[in-house]
Amino acid sequence: MNLALVSHLLGIVAWLIGLMMVFSLPWALPPLTPDGQFEAHGFWGLFGSIGVCGLVGVVFRSLGQRGDGVLYRKESMAVVGLSWMLATVLGALPFLLSGTSLQRDEAGQPVHMGIADCLFESQSGFSTTGATVLTRIEDRELVPRSILFWRSSTHFLGGLGIIVLFVTILGQGSAGKALMRAEMPGPSADSSQTRMQHTAWIFAGLYCGLNAVLAVLLMVMGMDLFDALCHAFGTMATGGFSTYDTSLGHFAQAGYPYAVGIEYTVTVFMILAGTNFALLYSLLLFKPGKLFADLEWRVYMAIIIGVTALVIGFGLFHEDFHDSAQHSHWESIARSIRYALFQVVSVLTTTGYGTHDFNGWNSFGRGVLFLLMFVGGCAGSTGGGLKVIRHILFLKVMGLEIERAYRPSVVRPLRLGGEPVEDPDLRNNVLVYFGLILVIFVFSWMFLVTVEPDQTWIAGGQPKENKLIDAASSINATLNNIGPGLGVVGATQNYAVFTPVAKILFTFLMMIGRLEIFVILVLFMPSFWRSH
Amino acid sequence: MNLALVSHLLGIVAWLIGLMMVFSLPWALPPLTPDGQFEAHGFWGLFGSIGVCGLVGVVFRSLGQRGDGVLYRKESMAVVGLSWMLATVLGALPFLLSGTSLQRDEAGQPVHMGIADCLFESQSGFSTTGATVLTRIEDRELVPRSILFWRSSTHFLGGLGIIVLFVTILGQGSAGKALMRAEMPGPSADSSQTRMQHTAWIFAGLYCGLNAVLAVLLMVMGMDLFDALCHAFGTMATGGFSTYDTSLGHFAQAGYPYAVGIEYTVTVFMILAGTNFALLYSLLLFKPGKLFADLEWRVYMAIIIGVTALVIGFGLFHEDFHDSAQHSHWESIARSIRYALFQVVSVLTTTGYGTHDFNGWNSFGRGVLFLLMFVGGCAGSTGGGLKVIRHILFLKVMGLEIERAYRPSVVRPLRLGGEPVEDPDLRNNVLVYFGLILVIFVFSWMFLVTVEPDQTWIAGGQPKENKLIDAASSINATLNNIGPGLGVVGATQNYAVFTPVAKILFTFLMMIGRLEIFVILVLFMPSFWRSH
Repeated sequence: MNLALVSHLLGIVAWLIGLMMVFSLPWALPPLTPDGQFEAHGFWGLFGSIGVCGLVGVVFRSLGQRGDGVLYRKESMAVVGLSWMLATVLGALPFLLSGTSLQRDEAGQPVHMGIADCLFESQSGFSTTGATVLTRIEDRELVPRSILFWRSSTHFLGGLGIIVLFVTILGQGSAGKALMRAEMPGPSADSSQTRMQHTAWIFAGLYCGLNAVLAVLLMVMGMDLFDALCHAFGTMATGGFSTYDTSLGHFAQAGYPYAVGIEYTVTVFMILAGTNFALLYSLLLFKPGKLFADLEWRVYMAIIIGVTALVIGFGLFHEDFHDSAQHSHWESIARSIRYALFQVVSVLTTTGYGTHDFNGWNSFGRGVLFLLMFVGGCAGSTGGGLKVIRHILFLKVMGLEIERAYRPSVVRPLRLGGEPVEDPDLRNNVLVYFGLILVIFVFSWMFLVTVEPDQTWIAGGQPKENKLIDAASSINATLNNIGPGLGVVGATQNYAVFTPVAKILFTFLMMIGRLEIFVILVLFMPSFWRSH
Repeated sequence: MNLALVSHLLGIVAWLIGLMMVFSLPWALPPLTPDGQFEAHGFWGLFGSIGVCGLVGVVFRSLGQRGDGVLYRKESMAVVGLSWMLATVLGALPFLLSGTSLQRDEAGQPVHMGIADCLFESQSGFSTTGATVLTRIEDRELVPRSILFWRSSTHFLGGLGIIVLFVTILGQGSAGKALMRAEMPGPSADSSQTRMQHTAWIFAGLYCGLNAVLAVLLMVMGMDLFDALCHAFGTMATGGFSTYDTSLGHFAQAGYPYAVGIEYTVTVFMILAGTNFALLYSLLLFKPGKLFADLEWRVYMAIIIGVTALVIGFGLFHEDFHDSAQHSHWESIARSIRYALFQVVSVLTTTGYGTHDFNGWNSFGRGVLFLLMFVGGCAGSTGGGLKVIRHILFLKVMGLEIERAYRPSVVRPLRLGGEPVEDPDLRNNVLVYFGLILVIFVFSWMFLVTVEPDQTWIAGGQPKENKLIDAASSINATLNNIGPGLGVVGATQNYAVFTPVAKILFTFLMMIGRLEIFVILVLFMPSFWRSH
């Protein structure tokens, strides 16, 4: 293991994180604060964090050296896993140093975030999960606006990181290529190394461009620059951090004239964010045929449309979307389409924005949302979950295996959109991925049920009989990078009530889920670190 | 497909079922009825069913012919799957024809079992699940004793069928052999066909012998012949049908002097029933070393001891085992060992007898029981679930795959107790099996949540918010052939409240789980029936 090179690269990551923090500083300064006052807590918290990032960068770089510059497989994995951990720790500093607070105690005094809270919030941002421990983000005394901006910036950085990592590392290997399915854009005569870098730049540009377009659209519909940027970051990263306690539902409640427009615009961009970026690029080149011909994208859209229709049907029957106001028949249907579509897309793409409290929906609606969390977006997108393509492959493998039970001699190749998949490892990889998710899910669930006291549910105002299902839901929501779950972690709830041990568990699950398991798990295998 | 031969064999199965029903008839006749009265309902119901079995046998045999007597793979699968379905239908007849009743309505009138109820109860017996729709089995006007005996007889037959099927069909193929791990007993110079038959006879004898020994022991401890036989059948088949509404807890409640002895005896025989019969045979040959050296059996025992200790620890802390009476410190510990050990063994072996209402246990206890349901007994036993060996292999494969992520060139063989497993298919088979269980579980869960009205939970006296977890639990309890689950299908509840559609779903799940999935699923593949 070339540790010197790894250390050198970690140093660069630390500097990048610090650089990104600089962009949050202006929001603490008078012209940009709503009341024209200098936001001292936020400013000095960020300032200190930037200093620490610089220092850590210097230390890592002095420990390492450029070396021969070749990253082998193990070094790549170590760099990705360790730099993600480093980013989590550094990203937690602004919350800690600014003295950001979870809530007020009974005497009205702010309750500061603990270390576990800060790590959780930071990881939730970078992993684009969007789960939060902050309960009152609109109270500027508790949560400075510049810190809120940093919180949303971690989504932006995390989404960018995932897009680039997919092209350069996670999507490599023949199985990874089959998952991506895309011939990478770029001049085809180049070497694969140059081409990969070229693709990474294109995707990063596309990602930043979509963020900008969405932010402009949101401003046109009435948001200020701060809200528009934060919600664009949250949408394109399929993250879900908002700047309001009531998430994206705030704009309708606060009477924004274009609130419905905002919701539908965000819906469209969530769908884009959950789409393979190679396909988005082909769209940009005016080749929409490639998008519509793609099996994964077609299944992804079919799930959105089909599930939304079912949720609307069951929701109307069970009167899930009713409120106190009287609505005409057509208004009821329009309302149900608006809420159901938004929520289905938000959960499927693992964004986690909320406009309606789905915890009050009927069992079918809640059950189907629970399952959608496992599906996730398309491969090569910022969406989390297991990815649509893995589910397609999984079901295809299962179908082939049932046939093999009575025709052991017939070996059929796995086909994807008519084309046989050549990689013999792919079948195995898909099964193993599902298996690992299952193992991690089961063990985490049992661990959480064991260590978390019933008091958590009582404090969260939820029946403690729901501990089993709520615990499953919170594991699910963090492992698949969604954010909100059911019950005690439902749309109107948050993760503040959990013990620090549970928060650290969630932090790990978010990281494992985001980096597709292996990159994190191998770091804990002693043999990974033994050179040979 | 040699349908003539299949039909011929189905005819024999119909006759065997009819023959078995004959043994339930005497319990309707005066010397054996408790009140000395002729039990007309039960007698004529059984008598009619025997007639139908005979007729069906004649029809199938006349349709078929002996043919050349060779069963190929497809024919074997068709015979096993279809004969299991036929047994379910024929086994349901005594319930239907005797007019057995679920309960009394508000006017005190008996509510007769519907067709779905009868099929459910019959399948629950043959699959050794032990889930029931009958709510008041001690009321002889509702449930004749001869029918109760038939109900327990289906356990006996089902357990026998599984033991024989394992040797002859399910345990065949190299992967099946690796799961069984056992060199089959028998004169080794014989052909594999003769040897297989020999082994089947030995295992069948061992199974019947253990039933007889347990029945005698239970009679010695105060049961009458009827109860002793029924509970022996329920134990050795890891079924769980009792003859009392309060299951095996009845004997303590009714003040039997040896109630504790009965519970511990049943515990020991449940452990034996969940053990690979090849290992039990080696025990019979005074070679206990083989048993103690077996990896699967050691893990199986470690789970029993470890989980029981944890359940006792958490149970004492949460005061789960308390009742109204005052107990000394040592009495409390003795009580908790007795209840916890019994329940853990009952759930792990998928028997499903109850002596304590575990629905009132703390979340850890309920959660761990939920997971144990997926584990099941050892391969080659009458226990259901996924089997311990599959979990061992699954975790080993996962461990190897994590290593492969950073050492793609290192291929390690799968080892089991030090020996490398030669079959290259085994890895894949284990993953596929877990995958199929997962797919069946998820789709059934969603289907049940969708079709089952909330009314089921209200009628069952359970909060309808528990629908999601209870539905998961009932799918789990039937698919893995346990019987009772959590909540609405908890230890003191039953399946009577479900709609007929749900009962038919459960009937299929029990069959799929019992026959290790493939044998049933292939019957629904059109290409299975096309000859080529």
